[in-house]
Amino acid sequence: MSLTAILDRIDAELPAATDRLLELMRIPSISTDPAYKAQCEEAADWLVRDLQALGVTAEKRATPGHPMVVGHVDGPKGATGRHVLFYGHYDVQPVDPVELWVSDPFDAKVEDTAKGKVIRGRGAGDDKGQLMTFLEACRAYRDVTGEMPCKITFFFEGEEESGSPSLIPFMQENADELRADIALICDTGLFQSKTPAIVTMLRGMVSEQVKIIGPKVDLHSGFFGGLAMNPIRVLSDMLAGLHDATGRVTLEGFYDGIPELSPAMRAQWEGLGFDHAGFLGDVGLSVLAGEDARMPLEMIWSRPTAEVNGIWGGYTGAGFKTVLPSEASAKISFRLVEGQDPDRVRDAFRAHVAAHLPADCTAEFHAHGGSRAGIMETSDPAFEAARAALSDEWPLPAAYVGCGGSIPIAGHFGEILGMTAMLIGFGKDDDAIHSPNEKYDMESFHKGTRSWARILDAIG
Amino acid sequence: MSLTAILDRIDAELPAATDRLLELMRIPSISTDPAYKAQCEEAADWLVRDLQALGVTAEKRATPGHPMVVGHVDGPKGATGRHVLFYGHYDVQPVDPVELWVSDPFDAKVEDTAKGKVIRGRGAGDDKGQLMTFLEACRAYRDVTGEMPCKITFFFEGEEESGSPSLIPFMQENADELRADIALICDTGLFQSKTPAIVTMLRGMVSEQVKIIGPKVDLHSGFFGGLAMNPIRVLSDMLAGLHDATGRVTLEGFYDGIPELSPAMRAQWEGLGFDHAGFLGDVGLSVLAGEDARMPLEMIWSRPTAEVNGIWGGYTGAGFKTVLPSEASAKISFRLVEGQDPDRVRDAFRAHVAAHLPADCTAEFHAHGGSRAGIMETSDPAFEAARAALSDEWPLPAAYVGCGGSIPIAGHFGEILGMTAMLIGFGKDDDAIHSPNEKYDMESFHKGTRSWARILDAIG
Repeated sequence: MSLTAILDRIDAELPAATDRLLELMRIPSISTDPAYKAQCEEAADWLVRDLQALGVTAEKRATPGHPMVVGHVDGPKGATGRHVLFYGHYDVQPVDPVELWVSDPFDAKVEDTAKGKVIRGRGAGDDKGQLMTFLEACRAYRDVTGEMPCKITFFFEGEEESGSPSLIPFMQENADELRADIALICDTGLFQSKTPAIVTMLRGMVSEQVKIIGPKVDLHSGFFGGLAMNPIRVLSDMLAGLHDATGRVTLEGFYDGIPELSPAMRAQWEGLGFDHAGFLGDVGLSVLAGEDARMPLEMIWSRPTAEVNGIWGGYTGAGFKTVLPSEASAKISFRLVEGQDPDRVRDAFRAHVAAHLPADCTAEFHAHGGSRAGIMETSDPAFEAARAALSDEWPLPAAYVGCGGSIPIAGHFGEILGMTAMLIGFGKDDDAIHSPNEKYDMESFHKGTRSWARILDAIG
Repeated sequence: MSLTAILDRIDAELPAATDRLLELMRIPSISTDPAYKAQCEEAADWLVRDLQALGVTAEKRATPGHPMVVGHVDGPKGATGRHVLFYGHYDVQPVDPVELWVSDPFDAKVEDTAKGKVIRGRGAGDDKGQLMTFLEACRAYRDVTGEMPCKITFFFEGEEESGSPSLIPFMQENADELRADIALICDTGLFQSKTPAIVTMLRGMVSEQVKIIGPKVDLHSGFFGGLAMNPIRVLSDMLAGLHDATGRVTLEGFYDGIPELSPAMRAQWEGLGFDHAGFLGDVGLSVLAGEDARMPLEMIWSRPTAEVNGIWGGYTGAGFKTVLPSEASAKISFRLVEGQDPDRVRDAFRAHVAAHLPADCTAEFHAHGGSRAGIMETSDPAFEAARAALSDEWPLPAAYVGCGGSIPIAGHFGEILGMTAMLIGFGKDDDAIHSPNEKYDMESFHKGTRSWARILDAIG
């Protein structure tokens, strides 16, 4: 009854909620690029103000990098419900190649499309739109009932897209303040854009930058070519050697300790009817690029990968320059699964590079982030309560799924705070997060907000 | 006697000659970059004016690209000496990475160094300084004798550093005007910076740009990684596959028709005492990177190569972006030797790329230049006359040598105009041409000018 009123309030408030989201999206809070430091601060300030408007005691908390936003609010007086922590991130990915965007990535707007209304702009789906579904659910709850459904701690990060360097120290230093009964994280999607899903398996990640250095200056490829080693050749050999002919990653010990998928989980995943041909077809591909003889969902959920995320060296401008360059670089990341240790993978990668280096070349490494895979325990009753609430809101029943992306925070809640994390999100496969023309469907935003209201009502 | 006076005149005129060269070098005539089109025109105009000041009938001649400069002047009345054509190029390489230059690449200047005076700036050694040695020799000749030593055609190009797209059509359309008894080309160096040298063997070149296209948009490497092919992986595999474990290029038919070095030439090259350890050591290297069991001079003079001159794809900025990019590109060049056909090599490379392409990826090619190797016939008596003249000017006797660089013009003189070309230049190994901080030793400029005066006197 009260829930019905709250859901009605969400429906009525949708235009105003959308305007609030667009305002947040117009702040270009690109965390990986130091040029946008002030904008990250601005996004954090915006969230503090919005939380305060909800009656939350909120503040920006400094870190060596971008600030955290932390807020606290009590539930109904004398309530015996759970104390939840809600996590989201206000930082976004860079926008390049910017020339492929059809409109300014930071001039966020609502667009009518053949598939319905979408909210367009960097951060729409990752993660500002998702984060705001929870805040809008809280706002509606408070507007209707005058109070929050339960005791809530809000915790927003500004470095998720750049390896979260400040996150672990901050969680360790503020563990007592942040600890709750369960963590809610909104940074995932609907399965195949339709099935509401709770993610119980996340891949971890190790990211590395490597520079191969050969001659001490750029050389003329005519005078030195054939006699002097080209660092792009060394880099290509090393990268080509990361996979064998069956698609397996060749790093020493890379697959050690990885469990095979349980028959029960395999049966469940097979039951999801994943349309891998459609999934790849939507992005113009058709060939499974993972390990031979693995099912497609394994390839993206429960098997590790090696990907080159960027490569550069020599002359890359207009025309041609016959240079034998002094150095060549690449950014490489490994998606990790249960049983893999980030430090061991990093060490194995560096050993792989060293094994490909001629005696007169050197390698320089720069470690970016590293995190273990996250495996959630679904025995907490909140999981089944949330699954039922999601099933009530959406046309299809909710499922437990895996996710190929890395959301290290889920693991940190377990390791540092001893909390279970429940990952629920409303993104769709065509949201183009991390790509040009990122969007978030109005349906995701609207029904996502309604979903949180139902979940809070069920577990509050 | 007259020669002595001319050499004395060159000595006295050196400061003024240097100032003229610095003025030409201050024009940033970068031919490969369309942004410098006007500066290429300006350099051509400068040369027309300087030729006219020497009494040469000279003009700028339009092409679809940068202009040619052509000039004609008669020798002494009733002279029976040879008619020579002199070729040089007024365009220069790009200057990036510009941050590695110790001074503005186009604020040319004379510097005192521990090894003597050098002329510093882009184009000093390649090719403006070399080109001007010939003009200064002509100037001194005319100043002292009132006339040129022989009938001379001047032919300056502005597209040598960008594949010479207009050269062959221009030579074909103006063959009768350009034809002379012998061509003189000043774009090479002293052997090991000491031995005056006439280059009789030049490598040709094929240059290609390739783009590998995978997914139609950049993807999130977590959601798609393991299932979707990464074009950087395809590119790396293809590039790594260009060489086998013995350093040989793997393209189909790549070595077909290449002659082995004659025993006589091998003996002559062995006699040059090439210090390959010092040559590599000067640029911070120590390992021979060419084919196993080849002598170092073969690797750079008479064996073909494959080099990646540039590579790029994915995110290359600060920080890290977990993108699975839509495309990856490389610029690749092959140095060719006697017996290789540029078109066949280009075709073999494209077939090699195609063989590495998964069914759902595509490749786009862009052909840059292509030229055969140049092999000079030394039977013309001008060769021995020039060798003797060079031996008179320099402390060491002159030698016939090879050159790993590509100077396609030498072959064109033979194929289009039926002329033998004699390649004589005064560059040193540490001139850093195509690299930051390019220079030309004052000794090269001064003794180079004196060398041409001696050569013109001998063959005029």
